[in-house]
Amino acid sequence: MLGRPRRLAVLAEGSFNPLDAKTAVGVVRYRAMDVAAVIDSTRAGRTASDCAGVGGAIPVVRDLGEAAVLGADSLLIGIAPKGGDLPDAWRAWVRDALARGWDVLSGLHVFLADDSEFAAIARESGARIVDVRRPPAGRPVAARRAASVDALVVLTVGSDCNVGKMTTALELERELRERGTKAAFVATGQTGLFIAERGVPMDAVASDFVAGFMEQEVIEASKEAEIVLVEGQGAIHHPGYSGVTLSLLHGAAPAALVLCHEHGRETVRDRDLEIPPLPELVLAYEMAASWVSPTRVAGIALNTWKVTEPEARRALDVAARSSGLPATDPVRFGVAELADALLDVAAARRARATHA
Amino acid sequence: MLGRPRRLAVLAEGSFNPLDAKTAVGVVRYRAMDVAAVIDSTRAGRTASDCAGVGGAIPVVRDLGEAAVLGADSLLIGIAPKGGDLPDAWRAWVRDALARGWDVLSGLHVFLADDSEFAAIARESGARIVDVRRPPAGRPVAARRAASVDALVVLTVGSDCNVGKMTTALELERELRERGTKAAFVATGQTGLFIAERGVPMDAVASDFVAGFMEQEVIEASKEAEIVLVEGQGAIHHPGYSGVTLSLLHGAAPAALVLCHEHGRETVRDRDLEIPPLPELVLAYEMAASWVSPTRVAGIALNTWKVTEPEARRALDVAARSSGLPATDPVRFGVAELADALLDVAAARRARATHA
Repeated sequence: MLGRPRRLAVLAEGSFNPLDAKTAVGVVRYRAMDVAAVIDSTRAGRTASDCAGVGGAIPVVRDLGEAAVLGADSLLIGIAPKGGDLPDAWRAWVRDALARGWDVLSGLHVFLADDSEFAAIARESGARIVDVRRPPAGRPVAARRAASVDALVVLTVGSDCNVGKMTTALELERELRERGTKAAFVATGQTGLFIAERGVPMDAVASDFVAGFMEQEVIEASKEAEIVLVEGQGAIHHPGYSGVTLSLLHGAAPAALVLCHEHGRETVRDRDLEIPPLPELVLAYEMAASWVSPTRVAGIALNTWKVTEPEARRALDVAARSSGLPATDPVRFGVAELADALLDVAAARRARATHA
Repeated sequence: MLGRPRRLAVLAEGSFNPLDAKTAVGVVRYRAMDVAAVIDSTRAGRTASDCAGVGGAIPVVRDLGEAAVLGADSLLIGIAPKGGDLPDAWRAWVRDALARGWDVLSGLHVFLADDSEFAAIARESGARIVDVRRPPAGRPVAARRAASVDALVVLTVGSDCNVGKMTTALELERELRERGTKAAFVATGQTGLFIAERGVPMDAVASDFVAGFMEQEVIEASKEAEIVLVEGQGAIHHPGYSGVTLSLLHGAAPAALVLCHEHGRETVRDRDLEIPPLPELVLAYEMAASWVSPTRVAGIALNTWKVTEPEARRALDVAARSSGLPATDPVRFGVAELADALLDVAAARRARATHA
């Protein structure tokens, strides 16, 4: 939803690594062609690939001036402020970008366009402020309509936040398209919204309408796709975000799930809550889905970035054997087996539909 | 959250019956002392009790002028507009009330205070516009903190919307207070917010923070109460609202649930989805809670308004036998058995805490 072809300066000051700059790293991975530079003065002079393992030779620079030399014409906020309020240091970057006439793209909870100082500068310079987290208009209430679409709807679900739900869905979209299948990705979070053509910032939507917007998006996406890949959010046992997870599950009414987990993570991040074993998670998600529309987990996506390749392969073996499902690390080993599994589900559905 | 002692004119034009004017009927039932009149020109001349079975001799009148004669000083919007937008006919009532200097209390999704015409009239007359559905400031994320409060936290859950979750919680608050127990009600919907001193309009809160606000409210309420009664929302198998339900369940981390159902209702309202049998619902809610913090259903509240008293008693027998739990109709037969069950749970918790 970048709106037009852009040359992005991606702001990741002090944080351009895969742990702290999820949005910046996601945009660099999936929108590399649109990125002129990453701004992180603490890593200036290095390449994106050096810092984050993605983005190849995209340069990391000190400030907006250096990004301008590289042809940047838009500033994308690639990190989230601690505490949720806009730090003063960031205000200077936003002001500077707008004064240069650059559009500013933000996925923050705070809407930059509502800031009178920013709005005034933008008006003067002709720059646009794009707040992708602004919820859409409307008050749709879901009614299991997405369960009836022709496309195979797939939702990525997880053991926690930040385990690979967006990445798995995007890698599946790419793999399926390469195989000639019409696949569409539906974004549900700020990073996905920067990358995708379609989506809703679900965490900013009033709670009554999350499932309704999810349903709308799936129905729209299925008009042009054979397989719709929906980015999941949160986790069904996450004390803060479980409601969002269930809204997406019941709104999207998917015919298949892919369960995402980070190998080695034992507790929900920043909480003292144990993550259940994968087979229990499979059952919990299938049970929760069944309250509205039954579904099955079709495979496991295991994020193994913290361990060596032999250890990763062992972890995948264990995951596959304990769950009875295909398991892969989408980034490290690709998603071929998951794509196979989804195409099998799609073929079985078509066969049933023909017989019916 | 009425703000101050009031003489309310409760607007229920064309709808003052228990099915169509949920908010008006709730306010008349639980805030009768604050109600000067109900406005419904189609029922003018009758009493509240005649029309809605509650509110005794509170008069139903034709318009604001008649309510003014009865001493009204505030207009409470007691019905919800179809489609969510404010109908033109209602604008005249709101304008009229504000011009009289009456405060206007609204639980609509649309915020009346943001309407420039209404705001201008209010400024001139000194009237206040109170939008109880405006979400509070802050972005709290739940972390199972409510599971550790000393008070017994009880959440009402249901088989559908509009089955008696608010009423059951309010009746339990009254019963427990009459028995000398410090009980506190926490509202989560617009009607509850008009009645209670404490609460949050959960359906208007951005989805990421519903559980967090629920947690905050429970922790606050537990400071002054032995038993905290939380009004539930939606149902865990409702395709539109299940996420809100799960957010409340995981945010409040209750030690006990009361399961509410309307006798005879077989499908989720306005949807083609079957309501599972009560014992299945008990298991589903207990399972969903266990993903964050375990709990048990302590009793069943069955709304039997549609059947005769002997039929109601038979239905309660069946519900009690099939679930192994105490069952009552809170409005028809009181909540003594449910209060007994909750006090037993509270005593058992205290005994465990003493032994630990």
